[in-house]
Amino acid sequence: MINITLPDGSVRQYDKGVTGLEIATSISEGLARNVLAVKVNGSVWDLSRPIDEDASVQLLTWNDDLGKNTFWHSSAHLLAEALEALYPGIKFGIGPPVENGFYYDVDLGEGKTFSQDDFAQVEQKMLELARAKNEYKRQEVSKADAIKYFTEKGDEYKLDLIKDLEDGSITFYTQGNFVDLCRGPHIPNTGFIKAAKLMNVAGAYWRGDEKSKQLTRIYGITFPKQKELAEYLERLEEAKKRDHRKLGKELELFAFSEKVGMGLPLWLPKGTLLRERLEQFMRKAQVKAGYQPVVTPHIGSKELYVTSGHYDKYGADSFQPIKTPNEGEEFFLKPMNCPHHCEIYKTRPRSYKELPVRLAEFGTVYRYEQSGELHGLTRVRGFTQDDAHIFCRPDQVKDEFKKVIDLVLYVFSALGFEDYTAQISLRDPENKAKYIGADELWEKAENAIIEAAAEKGLPTVTELGEAAFYGPKLDFMVRDALGRKWQLGTIQVDYNLPERFQLEYIGADNQKHRPVMIHRAPFGSLERFVAVLIEHCGGNFPLWLSPEQFAILPISEKYHDFAQQLYDQLQQHDIRGFVDNRDEKIGRKIRDAEVRKVPYMLIVGEKEQENGAVSVRRHGEGDLGTMPVTDFIASFESKIAEILNN
Amino acid sequence: MINITLPDGSVRQYDKGVTGLEIATSISEGLARNVLAVKVNGSVWDLSRPIDEDASVQLLTWNDDLGKNTFWHSSAHLLAEALEALYPGIKFGIGPPVENGFYYDVDLGEGKTFSQDDFAQVEQKMLELARAKNEYKRQEVSKADAIKYFTEKGDEYKLDLIKDLEDGSITFYTQGNFVDLCRGPHIPNTGFIKAAKLMNVAGAYWRGDEKSKQLTRIYGITFPKQKELAEYLERLEEAKKRDHRKLGKELELFAFSEKVGMGLPLWLPKGTLLRERLEQFMRKAQVKAGYQPVVTPHIGSKELYVTSGHYDKYGADSFQPIKTPNEGEEFFLKPMNCPHHCEIYKTRPRSYKELPVRLAEFGTVYRYEQSGELHGLTRVRGFTQDDAHIFCRPDQVKDEFKKVIDLVLYVFSALGFEDYTAQISLRDPENKAKYIGADELWEKAENAIIEAAAEKGLPTVTELGEAAFYGPKLDFMVRDALGRKWQLGTIQVDYNLPERFQLEYIGADNQKHRPVMIHRAPFGSLERFVAVLIEHCGGNFPLWLSPEQFAILPISEKYHDFAQQLYDQLQQHDIRGFVDNRDEKIGRKIRDAEVRKVPYMLIVGEKEQENGAVSVRRHGEGDLGTMPVTDFIASFESKIAEILNN
Repeated sequence: MINITLPDGSVRQYDKGVTGLEIATSISEGLARNVLAVKVNGSVWDLSRPIDEDASVQLLTWNDDLGKNTFWHSSAHLLAEALEALYPGIKFGIGPPVENGFYYDVDLGEGKTFSQDDFAQVEQKMLELARAKNEYKRQEVSKADAIKYFTEKGDEYKLDLIKDLEDGSITFYTQGNFVDLCRGPHIPNTGFIKAAKLMNVAGAYWRGDEKSKQLTRIYGITFPKQKELAEYLERLEEAKKRDHRKLGKELELFAFSEKVGMGLPLWLPKGTLLRERLEQFMRKAQVKAGYQPVVTPHIGSKELYVTSGHYDKYGADSFQPIKTPNEGEEFFLKPMNCPHHCEIYKTRPRSYKELPVRLAEFGTVYRYEQSGELHGLTRVRGFTQDDAHIFCRPDQVKDEFKKVIDLVLYVFSALGFEDYTAQISLRDPENKAKYIGADELWEKAENAIIEAAAEKGLPTVTELGEAAFYGPKLDFMVRDALGRKWQLGTIQVDYNLPERFQLEYIGADNQKHRPVMIHRAPFGSLERFVAVLIEHCGGNFPLWLSPEQFAILPISEKYHDFAQQLYDQLQQHDIRGFVDNRDEKIGRKIRDAEVRKVPYMLIVGEKEQENGAVSVRRHGEGDLGTMPVTDFIASFESKIAEILNN
Repeated sequence: MINITLPDGSVRQYDKGVTGLEIATSISEGLARNVLAVKVNGSVWDLSRPIDEDASVQLLTWNDDLGKNTFWHSSAHLLAEALEALYPGIKFGIGPPVENGFYYDVDLGEGKTFSQDDFAQVEQKMLELARAKNEYKRQEVSKADAIKYFTEKGDEYKLDLIKDLEDGSITFYTQGNFVDLCRGPHIPNTGFIKAAKLMNVAGAYWRGDEKSKQLTRIYGITFPKQKELAEYLERLEEAKKRDHRKLGKELELFAFSEKVGMGLPLWLPKGTLLRERLEQFMRKAQVKAGYQPVVTPHIGSKELYVTSGHYDKYGADSFQPIKTPNEGEEFFLKPMNCPHHCEIYKTRPRSYKELPVRLAEFGTVYRYEQSGELHGLTRVRGFTQDDAHIFCRPDQVKDEFKKVIDLVLYVFSALGFEDYTAQISLRDPENKAKYIGADELWEKAENAIIEAAAEKGLPTVTELGEAAFYGPKLDFMVRDALGRKWQLGTIQVDYNLPERFQLEYIGADNQKHRPVMIHRAPFGSLERFVAVLIEHCGGNFPLWLSPEQFAILPISEKYHDFAQQLYDQLQQHDIRGFVDNRDEKIGRKIRDAEVRKVPYMLIVGEKEQENGAVSVRRHGEGDLGTMPVTDFIASFESKIAEILNN
């Protein structure tokens, strides 16, 4: 008998050689129907592979990333089988799963092409083969046999891959008539695949080498239910509509100009309003949490970055230095705000009594990115961090960390991000030379993060090797309305810069001590945050953030004066919007305001003017009836207070 | 008879050959006693010089800059006379008037020195010679005679000066025993000088050339009344106390760090608070005035500045370009925001109906200054302009200009600058090649400024040749509490950039037209403005701006809780300050708060706690008595509203 430990900590006994599928069956029939693969002591295995020792076991379904991964990997084999049936003599490169689906690189043979027109036929073939419920069979083969098989088949790409493999580690997988060189693992049989769709076709060089042959890369996606494919395609369509570059243009939030430079956003008036409200919101929350705003320049001398250690890390592939005409000085665009804040900390002696010192700045930083990597507001060359640096005593680290977590969660709640996880990024223990700072310091820092996250009850994942070179960190990953994951806020412990800048405080013992530094940015960058927000809410911003909260729509010119009075009254209450005074029919005005995603349309005519009232229409909801202006303002203000003062 | 036109436009008839003094005497005896020189058709003359033709005449007294100038020039001669009496064989370089007083460069002879210890003796001698009321006598001399005189005297410096003069244009001035080579003009006699003070002594190379001999430069200042000297010295003393560099450090407003770089201010928390309040104040005023905030990056590609024309003007002596690692791009730190705003204007087609478009940004710009020229916050390498660009139709220029003047005057009034003039800077008509843009455009622009200023009733002076290379402008000069003049806000018409950026709007005629651009910055730069403000108010900021508006001073630990409640209550009303919880006597707490220039000290003890009251002390005023907290808040808020809502 062996002991199998399940994720909930429970331990079950099974006969030696039990399989993942047998464990699933022993738990429930439903699970047995849905299980795709099994994680055994950290590695993913076929469900049919015998387990011979005590092990930690997790049964993977479609709801696990690793389950999906296995499903799509098996689907790539199914695609290959379908292609081989339809295009005899076809040769295969590699066929891995990707973020959304999988691809296979194929060589169709001289003069043969593959286009979108061929998709339907292949999809049908895939489903036909899927219905056959062919088992994915694993087979260990010798290197000689592997070479023999693919030599006979005449597939030089697989032979090229085998060349690099070690004898004794080679496995084939077979389903139906298709045999592939593959490590696995795979799902039990093709019958799990109920929906298949080819998404794209492109060229790809063999092994990514421009000098090698160009193969045809066919992208596809599959699902265990037909309904899920339909939903996926709908989400794709919705994501296109919500693309922040498209909405940013339509809603006149931001723009790019080639003359100003690629990757350097120009914030248009409406985008600036949105951005300023976000800043104002954060500023208020930060002042309440004891932060002190500061302002520092956007450049720093070379000496500053030599001291901070960034010079060595950023010198070669960043914006080059700015020289002065005749004084031999060198400056850099600042890639981060921390060195400047260290210098502020140093402007006077600090006592243990005044710590933590929390310096906050909406600091615009510049980092070079290759032009090909730039993308809307999510990948830019200049961006504004809602940055702050907390200088504290070692015994305050965990508490400060917890306070920052509170702040981040407050931000997420005010902005409607309800689905998040925290990623704790630690050192790669195999490659400690990559990191600056002593071992002991790293351990202290890592423990502080892990404990703070645990005490705050954050759902976390831990990643080794993902830490910054100067310290471990905690990143928040949010899932947006379309289910996509984004990395947003960051909190980072740093024992390194205080050392490099020789920061000090006088302790209760009257001795000099070194403070600890925490970097943190709840939004991360305003640019990226706004991009995510646009896509999350599809341009229908939370009311308090909307750059145009109302549109006053007079039904005719007769009511322009009343509209203007109304406008002034709303302005007084810091409610932002516009009057649509155009000579257009009211229906047209409403339609246009809907397109602009204005939350409240206030329609005014004879009756409203007489009664000091407005007819209110809510974007996406429709008519809310007529009410006195004062009631509208009161209800508006209470809605905003509800979100911001929780 | 000739016609003499006086500044008020009145015309008087005099005999040909009348002198300035005779005209003064004909007007009033008092004037005759005080007149120092006379301006005849734009040139300053001795009062004794005969006027032979019809002329415009202005009698100059101590109250005119040109009057002071003449007074100090004559005083330099008096200094020379005194020095010659005390140091026989002394030789003289040049002796001009300067902003505050005058200097004379002298060669005392081999091995002789001059120090502060010698000041008193020279001052006494000057006053003794002044009391002799020696007349300043003008004499035309031939070049030969001039050379002969100074050869005999053995003064190689004067001979060096004569060398460059044209025969027939040389004059000597004599008072008492002292003869100088001089163009004049001078005051009538030394008796006008009633107070003299030497201020400084320094080295100065002859003709500013390091290879020439180093002379001794002696600085002095004189006054027509003893009392004015005393007042001047008092102001000097006060100016030292108010030096913004000193107060900036004491009040922890800003700091500099060598590592960050010279001339790049770090705004500390209290300074940032002040700065943010100024920004917030301006933002509000601007939104009210129809401006739209935007945000643009701090760099721009070379192409942007080639288009704007700035590249040619700023390339050589500015911060050098920022190169990218491998894409051959070049960026510049932005020296101004206008090109970026032009690109925002261009993001979509504009209709005449939506003009004026007013784009505002607190834009931080970077301009290289030699390290020797840097000075606190008034001369820096990076600064934030409260910048805006108005794009309007030609027929809107004057109106927009007037609105900007209103905004500037609103700012001045809220900040307590009551004494200002406006300088209109026009082209140098002799040197039109220096300027970009067509003649006709310049004339239009200059007239718009002159008319707008006149219609707003601004006190103006007009300076030829002081315009920027791209357009004429209006600068506001304010006089601070110590009587010093500062250039603050700027408004500038620009017909040039719209041309270069090919800006357009569709007119009512459905044709394309070119808009006009107005640059404006009421503060000018935040850095400079704050520096002036600090010196103007000596660190006692207007209440609404004060970074620490109150200090709550509990008389013992027993009242710390009540103090904290009070603090929270004030915070709720956005009143900013701190609780002094130190274990100190109340007297000490009050003294410390006075030093920190905290406007309101709120003292709390038994009685206050019982009644929900505070004992209020106003900085510089003393005890205001005890009042309920709510009364204090109400009175505080009404004081602020009074200033900001006028």
